[in-house]
Amino acid sequence: MAQSQQKTNPGRFFEDYAVGDVLKHAVPRTVSGGERALYHALYPARHALYSSDSFAQGCGLASSPIDDLAAFHVVFGKTVPDVSLNAVANLGYAEGRWLIPVYPGDTLRSESEVIGVKQNSNGKTGVVYVRTRGLNQRDEVVMEYVRWVMVRKSDLDAPAPEPVVPELKKGLDAADLVIPEGLDFSAYDFDLAGEPHRWGDYEIGEQIDHVDGVTIEEAEHMMATRLWQNTAKVHFDLSFRPDGRLIYGGHVISMARALSFNGLANAQMIVGLNGGAHANPCFAGDTIKAWSEVLDKSETAAPGVGAVRLRLVATKGGAPFELRGADGKYLPDVLLDLDYWVLMPM
Amino acid sequence: MAQSQQKTNPGRFFEDYAVGDVLKHAVPRTVSGGERALYHALYPARHALYSSDSFAQGCGLASSPIDDLAAFHVVFGKTVPDVSLNAVANLGYAEGRWLIPVYPGDTLRSESEVIGVKQNSNGKTGVVYVRTRGLNQRDEVVMEYVRWVMVRKSDLDAPAPEPVVPELKKGLDAADLVIPEGLDFSAYDFDLAGEPHRWGDYEIGEQIDHVDGVTIEEAEHMMATRLWQNTAKVHFDLSFRPDGRLIYGGHVISMARALSFNGLANAQMIVGLNGGAHANPCFAGDTIKAWSEVLDKSETAAPGVGAVRLRLVATKGGAPFELRGADGKYLPDVLLDLDYWVLMPM
Amino acid sequence: MAQSQQKTNPGRFFEDYAVGDVLKHAVPRTVSGGERALYHALYPARHALYSSDSFAQGCGLASSPIDDLAAFHVVFGKTVPDVSLNAVANLGYAEGRWLIPVYPGDTLRSESEVIGVKQNSNGKTGVVYVRTRGLNQRDEVVMEYVRWVMVRKSDLDAPAPEPVVPELKKGLDAADLVIPEGLDFSAYDFDLAGEPHRWGDYEIGEQIDHVDGVTIEEAEHMMATRLWQNTAKVHFDLSFRPDGRLIYGGHVISMARALSFNGLANAQMIVGLNGGAHANPCFAGDTIKAWSEVLDKSETAAPGVGAVRLRLVATKGGAPFELRGADGKYLPDVLLDLDYWVLMPM
Repeated sequence: MAQSQQKTNPGRFFEDYAVGDVLKHAVPRTVSGGERALYHALYPARHALYSSDSFAQGCGLASSPIDDLAAFHVVFGKTVPDVSLNAVANLGYAEGRWLIPVYPGDTLRSESEVIGVKQNSNGKTGVVYVRTRGLNQRDEVVMEYVRWVMVRKSDLDAPAPEPVVPELKKGLDAADLVIPEGLDFSAYDFDLAGEPHRWGDYEIGEQIDHVDGVTIEEAEHMMATRLWQNTAKVHFDLSFRPDGRLIYGGHVISMARALSFNGLANAQMIVGLNGGAHANPCFAGDTIKAWSEVLDKSETAAPGVGAVRLRLVATKGGAPFELRGADGKYLPDVLLDLDYWVLMPM
Repeated sequence: MAQSQQKTNPGRFFEDYAVGDVLKHAVPRTVSGGERALYHALYPARHALYSSDSFAQGCGLASSPIDDLAAFHVVFGKTVPDVSLNAVANLGYAEGRWLIPVYPGDTLRSESEVIGVKQNSNGKTGVVYVRTRGLNQRDEVVMEYVRWVMVRKSDLDAPAPEPVVPELKKGLDAADLVIPEGLDFSAYDFDLAGEPHRWGDYEIGEQIDHVDGVTIEEAEHMMATRLWQNTAKVHFDLSFRPDGRLIYGGHVISMARALSFNGLANAQMIVGLNGGAHANPCFAGDTIKAWSEVLDKSETAAPGVGAVRLRLVATKGGAPFELRGADGKYLPDVLLDLDYWVLMPM
Repeated sequence: MAQSQQKTNPGRFFEDYAVGDVLKHAVPRTVSGGERALYHALYPARHALYSSDSFAQGCGLASSPIDDLAAFHVVFGKTVPDVSLNAVANLGYAEGRWLIPVYPGDTLRSESEVIGVKQNSNGKTGVVYVRTRGLNQRDEVVMEYVRWVMVRKSDLDAPAPEPVVPELKKGLDAADLVIPEGLDFSAYDFDLAGEPHRWGDYEIGEQIDHVDGVTIEEAEHMMATRLWQNTAKVHFDLSFRPDGRLIYGGHVISMARALSFNGLANAQMIVGLNGGAHANPCFAGDTIKAWSEVLDKSETAAPGVGAVRLRLVATKGGAPFELRGADGKYLPDVLLDLDYWVLMPM
């Protein structure tokens, strides 16, 4: 009898990527109210625009979209089998933009273009840069971002490719942001949204401790990660990771963003991802808390809509507002350092 | 750099409530089949009217509504940041009525009117009475109930308000109950509902042991509580409650009600909440069982529809039908003592 | 006061079954996108036809159906209170066929016909054979299967019935399989499906190690089992099973099938269940892995659609491809041995 492992996906190794390749990722997904309900069960998400059709309609949208981070997770999850199955490390994000809200009934798929490769000096690994796009059933791009990962070589004798390192923006300018069509915060209901603080109430440099915490359970992070069809075994198989199942970094992002409601209830729509680092690994039993810092602000052309650039930090201990040690490295209790743009009523 | 906690919600203290105040609670919510599926995943809920569109249509409704207790949880969850964030104890419920079934696609919001305040003699706390209403996207009241809680004072020097204690009914009369429009049990299918016992088969004073039990897990009660956007930190943050995350009382109510299917499969629609006490705290690892007692019965004007008043008791040990000790206090294994009205085929 | 346990369901005992009886099972269920989202959260399910409306439409269907195993679980769950509440053992399955895909919005109910009874020589138990059918809201049979269970007698003095043992096929012939109306794989998108392997790439006798593993959590198997309204207490009540809550066998089936995506991504639609054994019990903490063996292949009349008969084995340890010991018995790490037919692009 033939015993085959060649039918299973071994993932791509560093030498399998070439600049200009377009990877068409598998398993498109139709989202529904089921994904929204699960998102609200898995995270303490309370932003009104993503909770209520009526509220979203009051803001000029057709109905309440799927959470922006849920859309990100769906798009991201599809890339894992082609991009990060043999990754040693997830090195960074840049130039992330949400272009069109995703609604129940939409079907998403993902594509990634290889935009950079650079072999490391040890000859065993290399860095791969991809620009990933999520597309809906009308082939419209709903979001895009650049990610770079360190990937192992399988064949150490494969020649090093010509190094290509893309020039990436340190952060998006406000002018790069795309405001969803029709968005209008001029009749925004602050009572229903949960807090009175508007765009003008936040100062650059201001820091906010979001106070609340959530202790993480194995069942929850696995359900979340599977929902996005991210099936990387490090998150699920304790026999593969006897020290503990590593929690998908996106679970920490969504948890911290949901916790940030307390102090940023009106930071409704995420439109830009400037960068992000998963500073330390997260495991079940950790209690996640979050704090934010206002990095920048800008007006927009949409009625009543302002943009705020925020740092969102997730921790598993320690005091708020502490990020790096004297050596410039992230403190051991810091899980996430995320830099993003949101839209807020003015 | 400014470090602000003033942007987060500190909750209201006793001196912040005045009789006549109307609190417009935040974060309206649109419900879908996702909430229904999760309700059935989190509780062993089997009442046919809430499981099948066809069955509900056979009872004169447009389709299968969201579980009555799910509607209650959605309405209740919104009140937590305004009513019980600084509560020392949840003291009681009264005059609860379900007025209009909630269907997938409906958007719910909540309002509470302060109907009583009474400072305690210690000068440190007081009791606040609110009448809460849940409204749908057509501004129709779908349910209402009175709740009273003991709340801390922040400013101990704040003067005691004129005490106002509302007169509340010990229990609703059958005439107070609102039967959903069109409800008709004259062609009720007992086979599909799961049990042959009709209204006439239950006697006042009869007690029913529901036999089944469920051992509670952290992930489940947190998912349930978040789904209702109740984000009180006692339920989620083990660093805040090192002795164990306290389980939301509503999780125990829904679990006990679902377990009561075994013996009360035809107790379909909850229409009245006469009162209720969370007798002891519940923690993960507890095994919940339930028993019921028939307190009262009444006919209704709707075809084939009778009303039954039930006591529903949830326990985490001990024998069924034991409620209070010789001292008149709830036994330590009693979690819940709920008094409610349901509709049943005659 | 009357204390009644007679209102709860004691389940049927062996002497309560007679050949020809038709059991109309309770609690019909309407499924929605909520069930689909939960299925994807509970299992690493990635088959594209069950994930994307667009992909399903590209295969000639109206939209993406509910997973075939989810439909099986819904149908099966309803039978538990009438068939297996007093079962000592679930002995086997045969002649299972999926006849019509189940879509969000469909309402399912179940009926079982008793087709065999045979008392065991010990006089204390007997074997009951039932043919179960799942029906939708148009009274169309969407699936059917035969199951036989060993059931306790309650009255040991009840006379042994005339033994009737139905003749059951050892396996369905390809000609027995029903191909969903309109199914057409001639424009099948292998990139979006996730693997290039088509019907012609699989050989009879070939074995595939699916590589990935999932460590099981209590919260997950209980949520899954409740979602299918299977409320057998062995799965939920630790006070009833102090050695551990026994995991519903269907949870293992769905987990193994989802894991088999890695190597069988194009084995899209399950259309036949030839047989199956739950070889050993599964408990929380076990890590499930899976391997498959190609047992048979056949062409079909539908355009581009081939059928493959597979053995799917789930394990909680040990090496792949090991099934039975020298004594012919299943090895202790084998959880499941399932024999089924799937449809695959040619």
